[in-house]
Amino acid sequence: MKISILGSGMVGQTIAQKLAQIGQDVMIGTRSPQKLAEFAAQNPGVKIGSFSESAAYGELVFNASKGDVSLELLQSVGEANLNGKILVDIANPLDFSHGMPPSLFVGNTDSLGEQIQRALPGVKVVKAFNTLSAPLMVDPGALAGGDHTLFICGNDAEAKAHLTALLGEWFGWRDVLDVGDITAARATEALLPLWVRLFMKFGTGNIQFKIVR
Amino acid sequence: MKISILGSGMVGQTIAQKLAQIGQDVMIGTRSPQKLAEFAAQNPGVKIGSFSESAAYGELVFNASKGDVSLELLQSVGEANLNGKILVDIANPLDFSHGMPPSLFVGNTDSLGEQIQRALPGVKVVKAFNTLSAPLMVDPGALAGGDHTLFICGNDAEAKAHLTALLGEWFGWRDVLDVGDITAARATEALLPLWVRLFMKFGTGNIQFKIVR
Repeated sequence: MKISILGSGMVGQTIAQKLAQIGQDVMIGTRSPQKLAEFAAQNPGVKIGSFSESAAYGELVFNASKGDVSLELLQSVGEANLNGKILVDIANPLDFSHGMPPSLFVGNTDSLGEQIQRALPGVKVVKAFNTLSAPLMVDPGALAGGDHTLFICGNDAEAKAHLTALLGEWFGWRDVLDVGDITAARATEALLPLWVRLFMKFGTGNIQFKIVR
Repeated sequence: MKISILGSGMVGQTIAQKLAQIGQDVMIGTRSPQKLAEFAAQNPGVKIGSFSESAAYGELVFNASKGDVSLELLQSVGEANLNGKILVDIANPLDFSHGMPPSLFVGNTDSLGEQIQRALPGVKVVKAFNTLSAPLMVDPGALAGGDHTLFICGNDAEAKAHLTALLGEWFGWRDVLDVGDITAARATEALLPLWVRLFMKFGTGNIQFKIVR
């Protein structure tokens, strides 16, 4: 499958590397290809392009950009390159301007996931992967044998079902929990303040939420 | 131990009943003692008083009132009745004015727990029990053998350690996770929007967060 990864930080690199390793066709979209020289040398199977080139390439798109630039970035690549596709939105609206732990620049009665869905009404936005560290996204079994929960939400039921199947196949995710339409991004983005505090307390991102039921 | 329960709804009644059953001395504080006639008949070991009488009685106080009246209620009982005591704040700042699921009337850069601590600086506020249903508060073993997480936070380390010991002794809590000072109430109160969505999805409050680590 052709997959676009918008954003070349830790999250984007981790997902791109894993998907290429399992034989998917991946193009990272980045503003700074020169920063990816070492990554590209180590991962010759991963293509590198501009944001627009990557978005046009993928049948499925990951938004792995920082939350404070996501909206502008996605609008800049053009709706035509994204319409009809599943956009897995990993970004969080973190505001670090008052130090650690961060607050959120949108929340409670709105969310970044909703802002993106409103800006790109022809795209199937599925919020996912925003509540855990990058290594666990692609290898949930590395913690407690994978016995923890991945929250997803979005307006398109078929897109959520398709993504759930792909995440099981690609990464071994067993507990993918659909928490509702895209307004539920208010609830999953709101987990970040606690996640960051736990990250600081335990000194590791190898922690996860599980919904016991 | 003499314990005050401020608030006579489901949460207050459940905690009062359980504590009386295990031999603690409990007084519920309520504005409407007549509404508790049946409960009082079934639980003769639980005393019923006004908010001020209950607060004065307890060595440890539970705030089991609704979030939108907590501040006013606590201020009305008088600082002298609360100073120096542990106040277990269970309330959440839920705003149901726009229907279900609720939003929060304070959050992100402040919290109800902090508002209460600021209003009553002589009280040892420990935020706890605000992220799960009343039956599980007093019987965590009823779900997954108790293998899930209770978040607590507050400014007084000794109060948190004391409460952690009591919750283990009284109810069998094994995973009480101290997430920081009272500002961490921003993070734990922010779990409610997800909790309510899960409650609606699964049609039961017999669900819980666990931090896998």
